[in-house]
Amino acid sequence: MIEQRPALIPDKPAMPAVTVGILVFDGVTLLDVIGPHTVFTLAGMHVQLIAETLTSISTDTSLRLTPDVTIDQSPQHVDIICVPGGGVSDAMSNTELCDFLRARATTARYVTSVCSGALVLAAAGLLDGYRAATHWATREVLKSLGVEVSTERVCMDRNRITGGGITAGIDFGLTVVAEVLGRDIAEFVQLGMEYDPQPPFDTGSPEKAGTDLTNLFTTVTKPVFQPLADAAARLLAQ
Amino acid sequence: MIEQRPALIPDKPAMPAVTVGILVFDGVTLLDVIGPHTVFTLAGMHVQLIAETLTSISTDTSLRLTPDVTIDQSPQHVDIICVPGGGVSDAMSNTELCDFLRARATTARYVTSVCSGALVLAAAGLLDGYRAATHWATREVLKSLGVEVSTERVCMDRNRITGGGITAGIDFGLTVVAEVLGRDIAEFVQLGMEYDPQPPFDTGSPEKAGTDLTNLFTTVTKPVFQPLADAAARLLAQ
Repeated sequence: MIEQRPALIPDKPAMPAVTVGILVFDGVTLLDVIGPHTVFTLAGMHVQLIAETLTSISTDTSLRLTPDVTIDQSPQHVDIICVPGGGVSDAMSNTELCDFLRARATTARYVTSVCSGALVLAAAGLLDGYRAATHWATREVLKSLGVEVSTERVCMDRNRITGGGITAGIDFGLTVVAEVLGRDIAEFVQLGMEYDPQPPFDTGSPEKAGTDLTNLFTTVTKPVFQPLADAAARLLAQ
Repeated sequence: MIEQRPALIPDKPAMPAVTVGILVFDGVTLLDVIGPHTVFTLAGMHVQLIAETLTSISTDTSLRLTPDVTIDQSPQHVDIICVPGGGVSDAMSNTELCDFLRARATTARYVTSVCSGALVLAAAGLLDGYRAATHWATREVLKSLGVEVSTERVCMDRNRITGGGITAGIDFGLTVVAEVLGRDIAEFVQLGMEYDPQPPFDTGSPEKAGTDLTNLFTTVTKPVFQPLADAAARLLAQ
């Protein structure tokens, strides 16, 4: 039975809940998942975490995620398929995951990603001929896979909606909700989440952080990001 | 053994990891937990979820959280104790939880909350004589408990650091990191999280959302927020 979307806004009648499948895998960045998950849930969407098995999933924090359903048993159709980022190098070369994404993408209304999740979509060939956003530190890798890279925080190109790094998942989620359910629902959810950001500093992008901090970050996090470039190189060599 | 904080910034030597205890309880708002958890983790802090038992915890989404440690077995000292918000009415009247918070607050360097977690701190008497922020929809309830309510996104009053609703947990987390570890670490983490927010709409506060949307929200979410006011009224009647 499809759940009904709660009629958040009384003028809008309840309708079958929009279904969202978020693909998760070991090493996923937790906030890439929870930002959009929260926005979608508050908007009344029906969100499931989909993974290869039901074994709990490691994240970039000490917390683990429990998948709701396996790729084999997940619904044949989801309205929105979403790939979060993080340690995606294994996912990029995982044939089962890429086959699954291609299969769901044939009927999904929107094929989406947050952060370096775009690299997985690209590895599955789902960004061929599309523009897409990704975590700023992975833009060159995405470009190496033949994707036209957007520096927008949220990039919408036909039915591909892709967000930038980690916290961009919230802006991404609200953009998707507005697109699918209407701006009034997105504005309602934004108020509920008190999303009136006031970052205490102004270093949220390489352009704002400046060269020194960006270079420092790139050097320190090379063990995190180099495997993604290596995975892309292996795909290109096939 | 205390973990070492990774020397994110080479000039800063590794030092014993700052310890954070986040209290969790059924009905907690997931993003209230994961926003700060991610910021603290990326800053190299050692974060534990503390609950009455190790049973998994329900959240405002379909996902559950697994506590790391019980209140009985948690370390006697944490550097930062943090209470997230959500369905806090039971927590507000839970003697064990409030006793635990009071005990840890005697030695913690910082006593903190996100969102309506401030109501739990207030119920434990830990905001008596302090200014504090909370989710905008719970400001009146916090005021009813005798707390001087701040409309700041992050409020720092001596060693009480309190954030506004849900997404404010990210601003809160970065503020705490800067206070405890230094601004350079906070700026580094902000760049890593690509926290350069660009909300697609401008309805993140009642002032910005306007009267109509705010009234609509208040009406629709009365079943969510009324129990918090009722819990406060019961405490005051004791």
